[in-house]
Amino acid sequence: MGQMNGRLSAEDLMLVLGPVPTGGIRAWLYEGLRERIRGESLTAGTSLPSSRQVAAALGVARGTVTGALDLLVDEGFLVSRPRSGLVVAAVGGRAQAVPAPARVAPASPGTPDPALFPHTGWTRALRQAMRDLGPRHLGYQDPQGLPELREVVADHLRRTRGVVARAQDVIVVNGVAQAQSLLASVLSAGGNSTVAVEDPGSPGTRALLGAVGMEVLPVPVDGDGLMVEAIPARAGAVVVTPAHQFPTGCVLSSERRRELVERSAGSRLIIEDDYDAELRFDRRPVPALQALAPDSVALVGSVSKTLAPSFRLGWLVAPKHMLPSLISAKRYADLGTGVVDQLALAHFLGSGAYQRHVRSVRSVYQRRRRELLTALAFQLPELRVLGVEAGLHVVIELPDPGAEAAAVDALTAAGMACHGYSDTFDGVGRPGVVLGTARTGVEAIGVLREVLHPKN
Amino acid sequence: MGQMNGRLSAEDLMLVLGPVPTGGIRAWLYEGLRERIRGESLTAGTSLPSSRQVAAALGVARGTVTGALDLLVDEGFLVSRPRSGLVVAAVGGRAQAVPAPARVAPASPGTPDPALFPHTGWTRALRQAMRDLGPRHLGYQDPQGLPELREVVADHLRRTRGVVARAQDVIVVNGVAQAQSLLASVLSAGGNSTVAVEDPGSPGTRALLGAVGMEVLPVPVDGDGLMVEAIPARAGAVVVTPAHQFPTGCVLSSERRRELVERSAGSRLIIEDDYDAELRFDRRPVPALQALAPDSVALVGSVSKTLAPSFRLGWLVAPKHMLPSLISAKRYADLGTGVVDQLALAHFLGSGAYQRHVRSVRSVYQRRRRELLTALAFQLPELRVLGVEAGLHVVIELPDPGAEAAAVDALTAAGMACHGYSDTFDGVGRPGVVLGTARTGVEAIGVLREVLHPKN
Repeated sequence: MGQMNGRLSAEDLMLVLGPVPTGGIRAWLYEGLRERIRGESLTAGTSLPSSRQVAAALGVARGTVTGALDLLVDEGFLVSRPRSGLVVAAVGGRAQAVPAPARVAPASPGTPDPALFPHTGWTRALRQAMRDLGPRHLGYQDPQGLPELREVVADHLRRTRGVVARAQDVIVVNGVAQAQSLLASVLSAGGNSTVAVEDPGSPGTRALLGAVGMEVLPVPVDGDGLMVEAIPARAGAVVVTPAHQFPTGCVLSSERRRELVERSAGSRLIIEDDYDAELRFDRRPVPALQALAPDSVALVGSVSKTLAPSFRLGWLVAPKHMLPSLISAKRYADLGTGVVDQLALAHFLGSGAYQRHVRSVRSVYQRRRRELLTALAFQLPELRVLGVEAGLHVVIELPDPGAEAAAVDALTAAGMACHGYSDTFDGVGRPGVVLGTARTGVEAIGVLREVLHPKN
Repeated sequence: MGQMNGRLSAEDLMLVLGPVPTGGIRAWLYEGLRERIRGESLTAGTSLPSSRQVAAALGVARGTVTGALDLLVDEGFLVSRPRSGLVVAAVGGRAQAVPAPARVAPASPGTPDPALFPHTGWTRALRQAMRDLGPRHLGYQDPQGLPELREVVADHLRRTRGVVARAQDVIVVNGVAQAQSLLASVLSAGGNSTVAVEDPGSPGTRALLGAVGMEVLPVPVDGDGLMVEAIPARAGAVVVTPAHQFPTGCVLSSERRRELVERSAGSRLIIEDDYDAELRFDRRPVPALQALAPDSVALVGSVSKTLAPSFRLGWLVAPKHMLPSLISAKRYADLGTGVVDQLALAHFLGSGAYQRHVRSVRSVYQRRRRELLTALAFQLPELRVLGVEAGLHVVIELPDPGAEAAAVDALTAAGMACHGYSDTFDGVGRPGVVLGTARTGVEAIGVLREVLHPKN
């Protein structure tokens, strides 16, 4: 089709983008434009039609179109020009700097696609942070975190997760791992270093809690989430992933939520790991458990699934009675989180850029997950896939441990993020693969077929 | 004298800056220009004479002039223009955003002057970091730190501190506090949680080590530094500040250095807190103790004294046998330091901007310290001041605890960074004030006179 440039009409644009799907218009528009700008079939300087015209041509709401276009502006693929509206940016250098997904080194399942990282948006947030950085930000800071960041985090968690929190209840942390490590040290100092965890569950969480001196007690998970009645009475805390259990992908049922809160009240800390709650695709995520019992739940969350795990930026909303000792623990851990990162996140969250980014990547991840599962259902219908429509990974059950080992090897060799499902169990686990869906496409299915049906 | 603009000759510039001092030309030039640009007696767009012309007019080496001018470029007060050379930048907005030193909230003694923070230089480093930020930086990282940063840190420490280190010996940490907390956790896990500290010494270090479960044993300090023979045999580690003892400002003598290394070999970890080693004014700082015994010394350092304590960025060079357990401890503490900060510091150190900044602020701090001590010697000759020419604080001994309490109150009320000298002792301490010299001027002396001689 060659290159398109100049001032495009909505009809020209439809021609460029090709057949319109029946759903997922935002993701289709976003990915289609992005790919054509990077491939330079839409050249720098080309004016796009207005979002109103595009929406009319597609027969969709204008918000669907602006959602896709805003993300492209944030990422630097489009720029807004006074009289021309949105114009394709010069991205030659950047396009070369960002290798195709398949060439990126394998990562843990559950990490976001680096190609969707909001590069321009975060650069802008950092620039704003440096503008905001005044003399008061340069000396030693309150280890709890900058008040301006705690304010927007509390507001964000109230609105998106129903969390009961004011700025003074939030501690800024270097990711969920640090939050867990601080909680563990405060629990140990309080005389109870026994913690229950989900089984299957995150091997990282289990290793961390063990390494910092906790006794870790696995508690089984079924289709309704953590089996609350099986939590040993002596566990002073329990780590739970209610919105989207890791790795099975189930949601803690409402009976279990009530039961967990009732049984824990006054005696046991519930550590709610809200690790990918913003990435529920089919409907609004269930509100945080914390809202039911702010006095017995510590909620931990981060930007690891939405921006990048390497940013080490997160939050801990703690019950009031634990706040002073947790702030002390943070003080003695590192005297607080770096101030420029804090200012940048405050700006990114406060300006709405974060929510805009989450909305857009959510539709991309939803589409990728659906494509993978649809193809899997056709091509390997005998395999069972666990979990609700959410997050950046799926569990695919496999017939036996040999198939798991072969599948993990083959998927890893093909550059896909995965690990064995059985590795997420404390004892002998069920065979399967935990497969990242953020970047893995339908090519995973070819690999699995080769492993399961080598003669085909 | 009104405003100066257009293209200035070296003679015009001398007129603007006033009488030339006999020493400290770099600091005088830097501060004089900075003040006049901020006060707009040198207006935006004014061209400066070449550094060669200025050096000739002043009769000094050209490097002295470029040292001052480079810092002003880094800070955004001057910009380099193709044909005009250095030109005064428009700083109206910034000048307003940076309050005068006297109006900044009191800080700990020993923190740098926020007005000297290299704002433009760090902004540039962050911009470069975002350009460098590729897909491989966005997933989970090696908790030890980015190889590119560990490389430049090792190189920097080798060149400036004589440290024996390669990139693989360096762990990137969130400041010295985190390094100490990691070392404490590894020592405790190894079965020896007894640590000797200097007395007087840093109350922060003592509190941190106590809070993370170490038994802290104070060891007296005299004019030659830590009294090595008094370290109890059962101490598994000793924290020492050899280059510039905190707070007394003495340097660990060469006999004591040898003695410390010999007595500790094979049995005790020496934790060398190299907290302000880059701010020795009168001569090159003594090389790091670590160079004498890389297998028994863990060297910890940070950018807290040279850039800002709120950045929480530092390094830990550890003996090889401790590296694996320290990297594990860092992993379980927070999975690593934030990647953008790491890339920015790698760029700032690697480009030479860090060393340029340190050289320039060193001369400013030296001048401020000298002015204070000269005035003190004239106006309050009965007071004894401790320590060599280094760092961002002095200890001024006072006649009695009552004078200490009154002086701390009065200095704090006047917005000056200080605390009681006696607070740095484990038991009953000697009276005095630990006074920050980074921002405190001769006005401190008026306050002290008022306290000591209220009738004058």
